[in-house]
Amino acid sequence: MVDRVRTSRRGLLGLGTAAVAGTAAATLSACDSKGSPRSAPAATVAFHGSRQAGIVTAQQDRLAFAAYDLTVSGSPAENRDALRELLKTWTAAARAMTEGKPVPGDNDIGAAPPADTGEAFGTPPANLTITIGFGPSLFDKRFGLADKRPAALADLPHFARDNLDATRSGGDIAIQACSDDPMVAFHAIRNLARLGRGTVVMRWSQLGFGRAASTSDKQETPRNLFGFKDGTRNIHGDPKQLDNWVWVGKETDQKWMRNGSYLVARRIQMRIEAWDRDFLTDQQNVFGRHKYTGAPLSGGNEFDAPNFHARAADGSAAIPPTSHMALAAHENNGGVRILRRAYNYTDGVIASSGELDAGLFFLCYQRDPRTQFVALQHKLSRSDALNEYIQHVGSGLYACPPGVTSDSGYWGEDLLA
Amino acid sequence: MVDRVRTSRRGLLGLGTAAVAGTAAATLSACDSKGSPRSAPAATVAFHGSRQAGIVTAQQDRLAFAAYDLTVSGSPAENRDALRELLKTWTAAARAMTEGKPVPGDNDIGAAPPADTGEAFGTPPANLTITIGFGPSLFDKRFGLADKRPAALADLPHFARDNLDATRSGGDIAIQACSDDPMVAFHAIRNLARLGRGTVVMRWSQLGFGRAASTSDKQETPRNLFGFKDGTRNIHGDPKQLDNWVWVGKETDQKWMRNGSYLVARRIQMRIEAWDRDFLTDQQNVFGRHKYTGAPLSGGNEFDAPNFHARAADGSAAIPPTSHMALAAHENNGGVRILRRAYNYTDGVIASSGELDAGLFFLCYQRDPRTQFVALQHKLSRSDALNEYIQHVGSGLYACPPGVTSDSGYWGEDLLA
Repeated sequence: MVDRVRTSRRGLLGLGTAAVAGTAAATLSACDSKGSPRSAPAATVAFHGSRQAGIVTAQQDRLAFAAYDLTVSGSPAENRDALRELLKTWTAAARAMTEGKPVPGDNDIGAAPPADTGEAFGTPPANLTITIGFGPSLFDKRFGLADKRPAALADLPHFARDNLDATRSGGDIAIQACSDDPMVAFHAIRNLARLGRGTVVMRWSQLGFGRAASTSDKQETPRNLFGFKDGTRNIHGDPKQLDNWVWVGKETDQKWMRNGSYLVARRIQMRIEAWDRDFLTDQQNVFGRHKYTGAPLSGGNEFDAPNFHARAADGSAAIPPTSHMALAAHENNGGVRILRRAYNYTDGVIASSGELDAGLFFLCYQRDPRTQFVALQHKLSRSDALNEYIQHVGSGLYACPPGVTSDSGYWGEDLLA
Repeated sequence: MVDRVRTSRRGLLGLGTAAVAGTAAATLSACDSKGSPRSAPAATVAFHGSRQAGIVTAQQDRLAFAAYDLTVSGSPAENRDALRELLKTWTAAARAMTEGKPVPGDNDIGAAPPADTGEAFGTPPANLTITIGFGPSLFDKRFGLADKRPAALADLPHFARDNLDATRSGGDIAIQACSDDPMVAFHAIRNLARLGRGTVVMRWSQLGFGRAASTSDKQETPRNLFGFKDGTRNIHGDPKQLDNWVWVGKETDQKWMRNGSYLVARRIQMRIEAWDRDFLTDQQNVFGRHKYTGAPLSGGNEFDAPNFHARAADGSAAIPPTSHMALAAHENNGGVRILRRAYNYTDGVIASSGELDAGLFFLCYQRDPRTQFVALQHKLSRSDALNEYIQHVGSGLYACPPGVTSDSGYWGEDLLA
């Protein structure tokens, strides 16, 4: 760890930046495209900013998510120092990688391992964002940070039907790496793991996909693995909505979280085979929408507001009250919304059943999980018609600090100050 | 199964083609781009041809591979009928999907499950190819096909250091779905599994990635997860080389395999953490190439021929004789070559070690595995310097029949005639 930090610092300070051979050091100009639609392949998203990128940034097509545990064993003060060094090293690496540069350090010394693992050399960052969050476990005795824990970072309660796998849940620190290129996203979580060796171990990870930037019409809402459009009613860039529902403001009890956000991650396994045997009408009643057009069952087009009072010909509700959309709609939850950032996943075959291990890796950002995700999920977990076809098998909650605003800044600086 | 076949046939014959709502039935014009470079997002690769697509087709960026087992329990004649019906159904579905159409059948009947699972609606095929192969186990007593088994489909021998997982090996039938969009590739193997329900179960599957079509410079050789360029010396479209090394010709003892090819699949797990600690010089000696430029250690540029007689300053071989390149080079193997079509993979964290479960899903096509992959792998498995950092954990061998040339043809027609 100490060696690694030293190398990174040298890179940072420009004292030892490697003259990387070949195409390794492809330097790409950064553009201020945070939050704007993707365009050129070589596009970058600015790393610096008062808020972290990767939250309201237009969703990239690929996800590599990893949760890490700290392995420190010193006094709280020593452990905080190790954590601070880690976060400085990671920040410098994340800054470089999002700019399309190799991990800072030497890549051309024969008698040493290269600083960067190399698989993304020559590949542009493709809108790479690297977003960090701190789990509740980081605020335990090891680091003496208990009094820095935000009230909003309350452990998630048990929800009805939860079937959580501890090996796919939790973690002291989470990293969400998103890019339009899966190699670039994977490269990020792998190199952070490597830079942290001796201080952190990867606890679990998850790859996800939307659909390829090269092939998708950006005007269309992507579909989940049940074949339904997913995200039609998401918060789309309206600054007032984002301030209301995503960004932590003055209300926080922990000043270090101002301009941060809270991430809830849920691995939602889909019962693909059962779903595929279900009738179209029932599938539509489960979601409350038409499968192909995405329109609400009350009529109109995909982006028209659903009418929860509309009646079908037989007098029943056109949008069933236990449909996923009806239960999750902000109209039916006192206006409460969350910012969703979900990816599809598939991890092969479940050995015990022979069924596909596939579903939705649900990521959502919010200002206060207690009144947002938790409130919504309590309701959904009890009544959602979709529950017949899904189960939540992994879970994580993380406090994502504000962004880094300068080359000398690092993630969590205010937390560790 | 019977119902499913009937629906598919109706779709095929145009008797019951669904008037799919919304954007579902996006029909895209096919272009004869098999083997040519990718271009437009809506690009398609022709399904029909004397040889299957997906073998010499320019490699797409995403892979979904699945191996299936037949679950038949009748007489050999009955089982062959079931297999034939399955292959007809699958062929019709593969033809439609590669053209960007939904799985044939009804998608708009409320009181029935839709024929297509729907997640790829509205997404163009992005050069989707679907390639089928038959494993040695298909030629057992169940189907009475023992006398149709090609001699070249001899079971793979045990290789030094093999550590194969039976749950990631073998299978009666393999499907390789490649597309520039992962959703489209996954949709293919999922829908084939679904259409075959009652006749086949998925035995194992593997997702793989190269790098995104949207971000990669097609002039550059992709890198593997060890950070080295992979595929520099691959066979690239030279028809004479392909006839020599890939396509089954008159020499075969089984006429039904003419214009087919043999696929060997190996899941090669990389010891990422050990590799990442290795010195650059040693990494380069393991591969026999410079990490960043891809040039052989004997000098020159990436695509220059390696000089295996060249000496380093200290008198030792410039390209170590136990390097991966030296051992695998056709110059050192009596001219023998194979067509490689490998993808990177990463499947999370290995619970027992906390290391990344990542590596190379190695696919290669050839005219006769006995004299090609088997001969090469015997040598590599004994001496390759790379063996310190890899292990083979999954394996499959499949006879890929010739292509389907008309709307009335189906995969394996000559085998089952």
